[in-house]
Amino acid sequence: MINFESDYTEGCIPEILEALTRTNTEQTSGYGIDPHCQNAAKLIRKACGNRNVDVHFLVGGTQTNLTVIASALKPYQGALCADSGHINVHETGSIEATGHKCLPLPSKDGKITAAQIEKAIVDHRNDGNFEHVVEPGMVYISWPTESGTLYSRKELTEISEVCHKYHVPLFVDGARIGYGLCAKACDVTLADFAKLTDVFYIGGTKVGALFGEAVVIVDKELKKGFRFHMKQRGAMLAKGRMLGIQFEELFKEDRYFKISKNAAECAEMIAKALKKKGYKFAYTPQTNQLFPIMDNEKIAELHKEFAFHTFGTVDDTHSIVRFVTSFMTTKENTEKLVNSL
Amino acid sequence: MINFESDYTEGCIPEILEALTRTNTEQTSGYGIDPHCQNAAKLIRKACGNRNVDVHFLVGGTQTNLTVIASALKPYQGALCADSGHINVHETGSIEATGHKCLPLPSKDGKITAAQIEKAIVDHRNDGNFEHVVEPGMVYISWPTESGTLYSRKELTEISEVCHKYHVPLFVDGARIGYGLCAKACDVTLADFAKLTDVFYIGGTKVGALFGEAVVIVDKELKKGFRFHMKQRGAMLAKGRMLGIQFEELFKEDRYFKISKNAAECAEMIAKALKKKGYKFAYTPQTNQLFPIMDNEKIAELHKEFAFHTFGTVDDTHSIVRFVTSFMTTKENTEKLVNSL
Amino acid sequence: MINFESDYTEGCIPEILEALTRTNTEQTSGYGIDPHCQNAAKLIRKACGNRNVDVHFLVGGTQTNLTVIASALKPYQGALCADSGHINVHETGSIEATGHKCLPLPSKDGKITAAQIEKAIVDHRNDGNFEHVVEPGMVYISWPTESGTLYSRKELTEISEVCHKYHVPLFVDGARIGYGLCAKACDVTLADFAKLTDVFYIGGTKVGALFGEAVVIVDKELKKGFRFHMKQRGAMLAKGRMLGIQFEELFKEDRYFKISKNAAECAEMIAKALKKKGYKFAYTPQTNQLFPIMDNEKIAELHKEFAFHTFGTVDDTHSIVRFVTSFMTTKENTEKLVNSL
Amino acid sequence: MINFESDYTEGCIPEILEALTRTNTEQTSGYGIDPHCQNAAKLIRKACGNRNVDVHFLVGGTQTNLTVIASALKPYQGALCADSGHINVHETGSIEATGHKCLPLPSKDGKITAAQIEKAIVDHRNDGNFEHVVEPGMVYISWPTESGTLYSRKELTEISEVCHKYHVPLFVDGARIGYGLCAKACDVTLADFAKLTDVFYIGGTKVGALFGEAVVIVDKELKKGFRFHMKQRGAMLAKGRMLGIQFEELFKEDRYFKISKNAAECAEMIAKALKKKGYKFAYTPQTNQLFPIMDNEKIAELHKEFAFHTFGTVDDTHSIVRFVTSFMTTKENTEKLVNSL
Repeated sequence: MINFESDYTEGCIPEILEALTRTNTEQTSGYGIDPHCQNAAKLIRKACGNRNVDVHFLVGGTQTNLTVIASALKPYQGALCADSGHINVHETGSIEATGHKCLPLPSKDGKITAAQIEKAIVDHRNDGNFEHVVEPGMVYISWPTESGTLYSRKELTEISEVCHKYHVPLFVDGARIGYGLCAKACDVTLADFAKLTDVFYIGGTKVGALFGEAVVIVDKELKKGFRFHMKQRGAMLAKGRMLGIQFEELFKEDRYFKISKNAAECAEMIAKALKKKGYKFAYTPQTNQLFPIMDNEKIAELHKEFAFHTFGTVDDTHSIVRFVTSFMTTKENTEKLVNSL
Repeated sequence: MINFESDYTEGCIPEILEALTRTNTEQTSGYGIDPHCQNAAKLIRKACGNRNVDVHFLVGGTQTNLTVIASALKPYQGALCADSGHINVHETGSIEATGHKCLPLPSKDGKITAAQIEKAIVDHRNDGNFEHVVEPGMVYISWPTESGTLYSRKELTEISEVCHKYHVPLFVDGARIGYGLCAKACDVTLADFAKLTDVFYIGGTKVGALFGEAVVIVDKELKKGFRFHMKQRGAMLAKGRMLGIQFEELFKEDRYFKISKNAAECAEMIAKALKKKGYKFAYTPQTNQLFPIMDNEKIAELHKEFAFHTFGTVDDTHSIVRFVTSFMTTKENTEKLVNSL
Repeated sequence: MINFESDYTEGCIPEILEALTRTNTEQTSGYGIDPHCQNAAKLIRKACGNRNVDVHFLVGGTQTNLTVIASALKPYQGALCADSGHINVHETGSIEATGHKCLPLPSKDGKITAAQIEKAIVDHRNDGNFEHVVEPGMVYISWPTESGTLYSRKELTEISEVCHKYHVPLFVDGARIGYGLCAKACDVTLADFAKLTDVFYIGGTKVGALFGEAVVIVDKELKKGFRFHMKQRGAMLAKGRMLGIQFEELFKEDRYFKISKNAAECAEMIAKALKKKGYKFAYTPQTNQLFPIMDNEKIAELHKEFAFHTFGTVDDTHSIVRFVTSFMTTKENTEKLVNSL
Repeated sequence: MINFESDYTEGCIPEILEALTRTNTEQTSGYGIDPHCQNAAKLIRKACGNRNVDVHFLVGGTQTNLTVIASALKPYQGALCADSGHINVHETGSIEATGHKCLPLPSKDGKITAAQIEKAIVDHRNDGNFEHVVEPGMVYISWPTESGTLYSRKELTEISEVCHKYHVPLFVDGARIGYGLCAKACDVTLADFAKLTDVFYIGGTKVGALFGEAVVIVDKELKKGFRFHMKQRGAMLAKGRMLGIQFEELFKEDRYFKISKNAAECAEMIAKALKKKGYKFAYTPQTNQLFPIMDNEKIAELHKEFAFHTFGTVDDTHSIVRFVTSFMTTKENTEKLVNSL
């Protein structure tokens, strides 16, 4: 069975295992203040255009989202997000468990617009009952989105401008940011995120690491006390260097981008083949997650050789399929899928 | 510099790195339902006397404590614990962040007694204002304690009996449970914990793993919905097998106990030497954490060669010192410390 | 200025003030266990068909909603509600502040259906990722709704059956329940609510009291520890008898229904006049809240003599208006409004 | 049975009932922005020396404490308080339910000192593990204390200075502030509280009102968004003027102080008689709550005629008794108690 099911089915890039083995007997302080974490932070800062950002390493995505959002909001504030946003639908109410409401906006292609965000903020301020309504206190977007799509530089800039105009911090969930940055459709860089956002994270779990997400804090206010928040939410790894070592390896020799590029190219091969065959897509195919609409017979046939998910029914004979490529996907296996389409 | 600072300064046992490398390209489902997690759970169940327990793998101690405690308590309940208990002093209010009060009891040698627990429960029930007072809804003890001491079988049995008498679940934080089980002073087994407690965890982070804690749920009620709680608290690792693989390796061939025994023996060598030299201890020396009281000149002298913490001042010329041994401590380095005393 | 702005602009029925004055020097225990609270509970139980229900008195609606909902849900559960439900839009995230997500369903005329509820529950149970998604743990509906509409006996029975089928408690927010029960369109009684729901509340604040809501708990599980929850949320009034006395007066001699009937009749006079004039309504006019769509010129003209709110814009020249009648509304003032239409 | 059980056994001063009756048909906006609330705020500001303070009206003490404290703290901060502080022992974990730890300090006579507070703040900042420990983010004291004692001007000033030195806001729970201000032992004024604290509240429930507490916010930062916090916690009364009217009546013609003075004088009569008889006190008798130690026979004898509480056992034959006077206590009944002693 060849896997196109998700981007977290395998382990990690081999360099990480080598580094963990090489450094195993080193003795370092715990909790993320060791030389590996410091060096990884330096490499990330460099990749972010050497801006004055704080870098923290956390273990997983849900943990990162809840820690960042709870650190930024006042008790009566919530986070504006796409209705399809991960925090709104697939984190078992983790944001609400910290006391805050997700404020979903209708999304198109998994995305929300600067205009929607501005309207939500302004409507709240103009509401005669505004003290009875949760205040938008943060904007959360995923890049790439849960639907595999990308906000363009223009879209990101507009959102960033609205956020800064109203002093509402912008948080980008970059669980798959590598796959976005290396996609053909991409017109931004990591350094742009360090300019346009107030805080974002660089996903490791889905992009080559065993686990781990690097939070990059741009905004001065959000930097304060973040390690307290991490500890309180159970997000400060005792042997913190395990995260530092992984991000060191990922950001050495541009590896993060090289492995992402591979996944992007495999996805593009599949997308091209699907388009050629006339398949429609539920969402614009732009990154390593593709959502073609296929007839159920074809799906059954493909399932004999390939592992992948179906996501809901379109009509009696058609369903939405998800093909995912990753840092581990080979061109060879991709070609097999292409040939089977 | 030879390290006696903590038991999480190095990486892990080599077998774990080998297994991670060996399994790296395997493709498994995420979120802890893969064959490695299943096998690790089986090995742990066996080590627990094959009782009908649920086993879940989480990443770290604070995360485990907050997830277990929040899953067990009603909103108006709190967790009875030693005033020196980790949840009460060193987790940045993580329990309170889930809405629950720690209910500290005065401790001696880091321990609380069945009598204290019973009194707290009964006093609450008899309080004319009991609806105005947080109800004890769980008992939390650490084994070994934060002071390196052990509850005896008799003490554990008494506490267990009180808990069951009043239907208040007993939770044992076993971050260092291996070091306790292999100590000379120990008169219980892992299987005893699966009988006496309602839920406990087997620490990996401090006992040979890169990270990871195995929660063992004995009580039927506490088993319900635990994976929801894990996900909500950001405690469900995407590549869950990283935890399964580690606990597989730890529980193969009795490794967990072998490596713990080494740490216990090293600690006993140091304790013996300290006693011989006439040093007093802040807490009874029983496991891999030793708290001798030393004069500041001697401390300064030792610090030239050894890394270790001081824990508060006794008088103008004396302080409490903490020496910690671990799965990585060598007899050779231990002898160096012994000779320097 | 004649007021049709809201049903909490005046004080209370005169009998309450008389009773407060008459009982002022009585000495009673605090916190809701005094003879007045006991007697009021008895009167309410009687009005509920003498079913075995618990009755508790709280101060306000938001407080009641958050206390009831937080008492019923497990941490990973949320409350299904209409997207227009009060808890979802006008309580500043009070439910989320207790850790729980509101799970809004699209509403029509302010109402959701049994079919929608069943689908939400079943979809969650069938979701392959269901542990990553908040579990529906309660159903919250308002009766009358925030749009002034009523669920019929048939609709309530269907919702109740779905809730009981899936063991998901049904909670009815009855802030304006009196005005519903006395509306022409109503085909249920208070006793029906004590049969069909698991918990509901009888609003006092908007129906004749200075303040106060009577929570009626039907379900055995929900009864447990409710006073602890009240105290913890700041919802246990020290001089609890102030609530008991008010509900005693409201439920003596059918007063609660008599004053509600007046409001209902006034609203029906206005609705009839509006219909006669050909006005359309944003929501079906059934109770003391009417939402006609009027042209802005007419609105401006009416505003010279009458106080009322506008609720959003329909088009450039039309808006939705809200007229509210209450226990204090007079037929005389109602006629003035009717004549001005 | 003559009551010395608590200061919330009766209703309110007659002027409040008269005013409620007189204003009953007035039509005002809800939620505390009506002319009565505005006028009451003005009267309170005047009593506070016309300082630039915000005044908000809430319903009860627990509600006020949790709303104020949750509005002031960051998620990883807690409130320093006396171990006997109301929030720590008698509010069912309401502070923890908002996510924050109470940080109790050992108390003497119900009081904590500036030195203790400074040590707690400094110790935290100097702690090598400070990110693992809850940060003191507010100081909570009760004035009078739960033990009926008073901090002197000197003590309050010292605490205030420490708080301002370290930018940790000072919050005074003034549930019985009137009885403190009118005690012989008192050397401060209401205006002093508006200088020395960052936020405090003036208790109505126990000092002449049916219910209600007036929060006075001095600090600029704490003023922001307070009404959002109120609404979210269910602490914004719909018919808010009920609170405004009560505080208007209490602060007209110095009534708040006149009625407090009566209670203080009655308490002083009892204290004098007890001292004369040679009774010892558990806490220094200074305000309307007296805690003499009496032999159990005498207690039994007094209980025939008087209602009062006993608070714990001193030895086999002696207990701590609590006598409470209030705005309703008469000199006549006080003399009866004095004569029976």
